Formats: sequence, C-alpha cells, structure tokens
Amino acid sequence: MLDAVNLQKTTMKEEYKPESRKLKEELAMLQLKIKENKLPVIILFEGWSAAGKGSLISDMILTLDPRNFKVYSTMPASAEEQRKPLLWRYWQMIPAKGQMTILDRSWYQDVSIARLEQDLSDEEVFRRMDSIKTFERQLTDDGYLIIKFFLHISQKEQKRRLDKLEEDSNTRWRVTKQDRHRNRQYAEYYRVFDQTLDYTSTENAPWHPVSCHDKRSALIEIYHTVIDSIERALEQKALPHPVSPITAADHFNLVRMPRLADVDLDREVTEEEYRRLLKKKQARLRELHNEIYQRKIPVIVCYEGWDAAGKGGNIKRVAAALDPRGYEAIPIASPSPEELAHHYLWRFWRRLPKTGHVAIFDRTWYGRVMVERLEGFCTEDDWHRAFTEINEFEKELHDWGAIIVKFWVHIDKDEQLRRFTDRQNTPSKQWKITDEDWRNRAKWDQYEVAVDDMLQLTSTDFAPWTIIESNDKKFARLKALTTLIDAIENRIGK
Amino acid sequence: MLDAVNLQKTTMKEEYKPESRKLKEELAMLQLKIKENKLPVIILFEGWSAAGKGSLISDMILTLDPRNFKVYSTMPASAEEQRKPLLWRYWQMIPAKGQMTILDRSWYQDVSIARLEQDLSDEEVFRRMDSIKTFERQLTDDGYLIIKFFLHISQKEQKRRLDKLEEDSNTRWRVTKQDRHRNRQYAEYYRVFDQTLDYTSTENAPWHPVSCHDKRSALIEIYHTVIDSIERALEQKALPHPVSPITAADHFNLVRMPRLADVDLDREVTEEEYRRLLKKKQARLRELHNEIYQRKIPVIVCYEGWDAAGKGGNIKRVAAALDPRGYEAIPIASPSPEELAHHYLWRFWRRLPKTGHVAIFDRTWYGRVMVERLEGFCTEDDWHRAFTEINEFEKELHDWGAIIVKFWVHIDKDEQLRRFTDRQNTPSKQWKITDEDWRNRAKWDQYEVAVDDMLQLTSTDFAPWTIIESNDKKFARLKALTTLIDAIENRIGK
Repeated sequence: MLDAVNLQKTTMKEEYKPESRKLKEELAMLQLKIKENKLPVIILFEGWSAAGKGSLISDMILTLDPRNFKVYSTMPASAEEQRKPLLWRYWQMIPAKGQMTILDRSWYQDVSIARLEQDLSDEEVFRRMDSIKTFERQLTDDGYLIIKFFLHISQKEQKRRLDKLEEDSNTRWRVTKQDRHRNRQYAEYYRVFDQTLDYTSTENAPWHPVSCHDKRSALIEIYHTVIDSIERALEQKALPHPVSPITAADHFNLVRMPRLADVDLDREVTEEEYRRLLKKKQARLRELHNEIYQRKIPVIVCYEGWDAAGKGGNIKRVAAALDPRGYEAIPIASPSPEELAHHYLWRFWRRLPKTGHVAIFDRTWYGRVMVERLEGFCTEDDWHRAFTEINEFEKELHDWGAIIVKFWVHIDKDEQLRRFTDRQNTPSKQWKITDEDWRNRAKWDQYEVAVDDMLQLTSTDFAPWTIIESNDKKFARLKALTTLIDAIENRIGK
Repeated sequence: MLDAVNLQKTTMKEEYKPESRKLKEELAMLQLKIKENKLPVIILFEGWSAAGKGSLISDMILTLDPRNFKVYSTMPASAEEQRKPLLWRYWQMIPAKGQMTILDRSWYQDVSIARLEQDLSDEEVFRRMDSIKTFERQLTDDGYLIIKFFLHISQKEQKRRLDKLEEDSNTRWRVTKQDRHRNRQYAEYYRVFDQTLDYTSTENAPWHPVSCHDKRSALIEIYHTVIDSIERALEQKALPHPVSPITAADHFNLVRMPRLADVDLDREVTEEEYRRLLKKKQARLRELHNEIYQRKIPVIVCYEGWDAAGKGGNIKRVAAALDPRGYEAIPIASPSPEELAHHYLWRFWRRLPKTGHVAIFDRTWYGRVMVERLEGFCTEDDWHRAFTEINEFEKELHDWGAIIVKFWVHIDKDEQLRRFTDRQNTPSKQWKITDEDWRNRAKWDQYEVAVDDMLQLTSTDFAPWTIIESNDKKFARLKALTTLIDAIENRIGK
C-alpha cells in the first residue's frame, strides 16, 4: 500500500491558501452536522516519527469547536492498563454520538511498533490484528465513522528532519534514541507498517496513506479525505439499513443447550445437605480465589435470570466466599444518557476487572438480546448482530485469559407468581417488587423465546451458559458454586 | 488515643454466637434503610499489619448485599495517580447515595506510613492532614457518613502473628520485609499513628480504635460501632438542618472585585490590532504550553459567563494556541443521574488534568452558586457552604501546583438581546439559541446578584477571577489570552 504513495506531491502556496480556507469552512460546517446527526467520528493518525503528525493534527482541528472533540496521545500502556485486555484503553476513548475522537497514534501501535520491539509471535500479531478488525467493524456497524491516516515520508527525509530537530536546542529533546534506531531500521519498519495497512484496510475502515514531504499537500489531502468521509457517512446514515440475519457467526463452536421448557426444575437439596455442602464449597472457592489472585487470572461471572429467581441471594453466597479486596459485584441498571450515547458494549468494557480479580455482573450485556430486543430499545438489526458481537466480546476476554462463567437462574412461571405474591404480602419484602416486575411477567412467553435464542447462540466452548435450576434456591446456590469451582479448577488444572 | 485501648478485651464463644447473629441481622436490615434513605456510607480500616484487617472486613460484610458496597484496597499510587492531586484517587472511590464504600487502608496511608517512609516534612504532613480533614468535612456536610477504624495490636502480638504466618508455606508470601521492619520500629510507628489519630479525629468523622488481640471482641465492637453510627446518621438525616452563613471562610485572602454594574463594557480593539495581537499572543502561549508541559505544571482554565457572551469563540482562540495532545476542553452540562448521586464536586475531581496538561472548563463547579442556587437544585445550606468548599477545592489544586485562571465573560443585557435576536434571525445560528436561554435571560437580575456574590467570595489570591469585557468579542479574546499568558509567566518567572 505504501509503494503507491507519491512522495513527490507538492502544493503551491498560491493554490493552498484559497483551497485550505474553503476546506476549513466546509469542515467547520460539517462539525455542526455531525452533532446534529449524532454521528460519532474517530480519526486516527499513524505514521513515521517526524512526519509532522503533531502539527498536522493541530492545523486540522484549528477551525473545530474544541468542545466537540478530544485528542488522545497513545502512550505505552501503564501498569494498570497492562492488567486489562489490550483494547480496553481504546474502548475508553471512543466518542459519544455527535462527538469526535482524534488519536495521535492508536491501537495500531500494538501490532506494528510492538511487533518489532516487543518480540511478539506472528500468531499473536495476527490475533491482535483480527481483534482490531472486529473492534472497528463493531463500531462502524453501530454507526461510528473511522478515518485512518498513515503519514508517510522516506527514510532520507526522516533522517533530514531528525537532524534538523536535533540542531535546535529547543527541539532537541524531541528526538529520542528510538527515533534514530527506527530511522536506521527503516526498511524493516516499512515492511511491517505496509503489511499492517494491507491486512487492516477494510471496506468499513480503510487506510489513507498520506505523502508528507510537503506539508501543504498533506493537509489538503487530509481535509479532503475527512470531509468526503463525513459526507458519505451522513448520506449513508440517512439511508434505510438492511437487517442482518440472526447468527452466532460460523467460526464459534457452540455448546448445545436445552430449551427452557425442557429443564427439570424439581431438583432440590435437604436443609442439612445444603448447610454441609455450602460450607465445604465456599471453603474451596476461597482457596481457589487466592490461587487465581496469585496467578493473576481474571474471572467474570455473569448472572441473568427471571425476576425473583433468586439472583441476589445466589450472588451473596458466592461473594461470601471471596476476599472482598479481590472481587466486585456490579449491578447493571438501565443505561445512563452518557452510556446510551456510546456503543452498547462500552459500559461493560469500562467495568472489566483487573487480572487476578473477580467481577460478578448482576445482569449483563445480554440485556441487548432480551429487554432491549423486546422493548424496542434497539433496532432489529442491532439485536440480530448482537449474538455475534457478544461472542466476539467474550472471545476477546477469553483470549485475554479470563475465566467466563454465565448463569441463567431459572424458575417456572408458577414459582415466580408464588414469590411475587409472597413479596407483596410481606411488608419487609415489598420494596423488592415493582410494577415493572409485573409488566415483565406479562411478557413471559416472549422472554422465553428470547432466552432460548440467547442460550442457543451464545453458549460457546470458551464461555458456555449454565442453567441454574432455582425453584429450590438452596440447590441453585450450590450449583452456582460448583460450576464456578469447576471452571476455575479446570483452568488451573486441579 | 491508642493508649486508652484495652488490649486485654476478650469475648467468649458462648457470648459471641448469639450476639454476633443479632448484630449481623441488624446490619443487614440497616443496609436496606441506607438504600431507602439514600445515605452514602464510607467505612475505612487502618491499623497494624497482621491485626486481622482482611478477615475482619470479610466477616463484617458477610451479611451485606454485595451489590450495595464496594471494597477498595489502597495500594501505593500508580504512575498515573502520581500525576494527579493526592486526594484525586480517593474522590473516585466515594460511594453514590445509598451505597457503601469500604476501604482497606485509605488516605491516611499518605500521612502515617508515608510520613516515616517517604521523608515528608512536618509541614507537608500537617498540610495533608488538613486537606484530609477538609475532605472529610465536605463529605459529611453533604450527608456522607464516615466511620474510621484503627485496628490495634501490641508489638509483641504483631511479632507473634508475623512469625506464625511465616511458618506456614501457604501464608509465607504475605509477610514482607517491610512488615518486619515496621514491627521492629513499632514505637516510632506507634507515635506517628497516635498523632495522626489525635489530629484527625473530628466530631463529624471520629476515629474508633479497636483492640484486635481477640478477634471476636473486635468484631462485636466493629458491628456495634457501625450500627450505632448508621442509626445516628439516619436520625440526623431526618432532622431539619440549620442553614450555614454565607462566607468565604476567614483564612482565605480575597482579591477585591468590582460589581458587575461597575464594569466598563466599552473596551474594544480595531480589526487590524486584533489580527496582529492575536497572532503574537497565540505564538507566546504556544511557547509557554511547551514550557509548562516540560515542567509538568497543570493549568486549569475556567470559563463562566452570560449566555451568548462569546465563551465558545473565546475558548477556540485559546485552544488554537495549544498543542492538542496537551489540553482538553471540557464542556459541563447538567449532571447525569450518577453524578447527582455523588457529592457535587465529584464530577469535577474526576475530570482534573494530569500534571503538565491544560484543562479548559466550559462552565464549572460554579454552577453550584449560580444555576443550582437560583433554580433550587440544591438547598440553601448547600449553596451557602459552597463558597468555602470551592475555595478549599481550588486551594487543593493550587497546593498541588496548578495554575488556576477563572474568566467571567461579561456582556450587558442589551448586547445579549442583540445577539439572541441575531441568532434567531440567522438560519445557520438558530441551533445556538434555545428556550432555556430566554428563560435564563428573564432571570438576569437574580443572576447578577449571584454572580456578584460569587466574584466577591471566591476570588482568592491563589485563584482570582478575571472579568472579560466581551461586548467586543475581539477585545475579550485578547484579554483572555493575555491573562492566561501572564498567569503562566508569573509562575515560571519569565
């Protein structure tokens, strides 16, 4: 891709002035449209050191309203960031709808520079590039516009610029040994950059290599590309969207799950057996928590289930066995306006645990294919795509090293009625029952279809569902503990 | 304070069982009341290593619903945290109303352990302790309950426990060289802990030293203290609150400000002068930005002003002179539900820049004494207290090393009407004017009283206000640039 860049391109000052003025005005007007049409825009800049990235970014944003964009400089991951999945910190940076994020270096650092300087295996590099492609596709599918620039200069030109920076005592500090090293090894870096661009230039998020020998022509090219891309995105936004098929994506291995209607809910334990086993299993989980903490394995426990199925009490029994400094229970309510203005997975990415910690989600990202599907909080296309997107999300967590355990806490309709009525008739429990619970209950059959779809399409070999029969809450608690213990033992080989 | 602790206290098993059961039930019931009454609770644990902190915390929370509390372990500050004010990371941890935060070590690490191990001057230690007292008072004034435990054991007992931990291969890793060192220097640590407790035990947030030689009696004492404190806080919450007087707090030196009515708004510049000076001043600010970046000085620029006063265009001219990788423009809208559920300063603490960076706030924490005061979004007592709280907040930022520049962008009522009408009559500007602007305009006189109060009471020598006369926007932009340049030059001595 880089070979095709014409490094000789120049623009004369006489041409540049009127043209750049016109383009700047167009871009300023477009920024209003971005806001009005709630288009989220990501513009990322990669390229050679001394290609002029900083100054090009500064010029590009000059006419933009600084309240509508944010520039991030990507530094090497901090100690905290290193305890999260690779894409975690980039998910924090994605803009809200109607806002722009401008990235001075981006996730591509982790597959280009890192490839040469961190001794990554080719397998790991391609896994990362695939993750990135998935990430970008998830965003563009959700209506994000991603514009990717690679600022290109020749080895000779780079050397000339580094020399010049070093001559001036004010700019000398900007030239690092690393820059010099990279300049000497230009050919090697060229090969890696070029391969990265080729592999990750997709229809939905294509690369734009820009010749940067002449700053004026580079800037004109950047303006044109940004303006064209935004105009195209705004046009597309106005068009009707085809609805994606419902699929879990072919490359995931699904675990067969029973239909809810076929689940045997008569399973129970005696009080005595419960007391004995609860103690034993909690003690075992306590040991294992210590173990995963020391091995820095993250654990993600997901609770979904019918209202009044006993999620709260179940979570309490699991949490009681964990060291409070190493876990967090995360209740998921309806999204805030800020959360709604981002990709729906954003709020879950933000809440991921550190390595070695346990996150217990009380309701999860599966809201997308249950309540959001049934209440029309997202489009049909949105929830159709979600099965694949969620599998991809969990695959990302799995590849990061997480143990993922997902519970559907199950009761039947009669049992729910008994519990609702009991709550309504017991003063100390009345706070637990709301009108919404009754409204949801009225939609039981529709929910059952949605849950069955979910169980069929998102029970992967790396993140399988477990149905927790909870007509008997005691049985349910023991089963949840056992499942979690098994999953951890399985991983650590005990 | 520690001398008064009876280390001989024990509780027999027969006594313990029924009593602890009763207390646990009480606490579980109280947790519902905490939620219902939206009481935010912070429980912090300090104390000697091996006093049993981890296990006491685990036991205490056993009956609580894990979705309503979060336990934080305070580690040494990370590299990122070190680039923020000392209390920054603790502000992130405060709970929402109705939630509990439990701290396994807390901000007291920075004045006790740090005092001995980081070679802090006494002056710095007392400054930090005063900051902490202010922090805690701001929270309790806002209705937060803070319960502080110090877990106490003797030097001999500590040694015995460290020895025991070290004997067992499963627990050996928990004993560090530091623990041994601290045990040998017990007397010195004792003196520092004791002084810290004495100095920071306030009426609103008293210390509770707990004898931990006997775990059962420690736990009973902790339960009792927590339950009593919560019950008292709930009772107090129900009582009517006296209204604080309006004051800036005596210990701040205020800079005299003119009344808005006395400001001369006829100041203006010619187009030609504007072009010349804008270029010159932006160039100078660009240089200074580089300088503060290298010296790691944080800069906080606050914009407040009338609707249509020209804040946006003014911010743009300042931002245009800054390297986009080193500044952030932060528009402040009305608070989200999550933000409303916290102390009002929480959302601003979260958005502070790193050292060396510039944060430009488009509207600020002063909303408390303007829109929140006038629209009744907070109580009278709340906005009365706010003048002192804001001065304290800015003092904290100043002590951290920040340059603070605050602009009131000022126009008169006629000029605002002209601009509103112009916006309404120009299709490309109509989006800029809303019904709310007209509603605010109708309250101009009330706002003028509020702004005058604000300027009088919060213009401190470390964070003075500057009135930016903006009937002529060009004059206003130059004055903002000049003020910012002066403030930075002043600091760096140029």
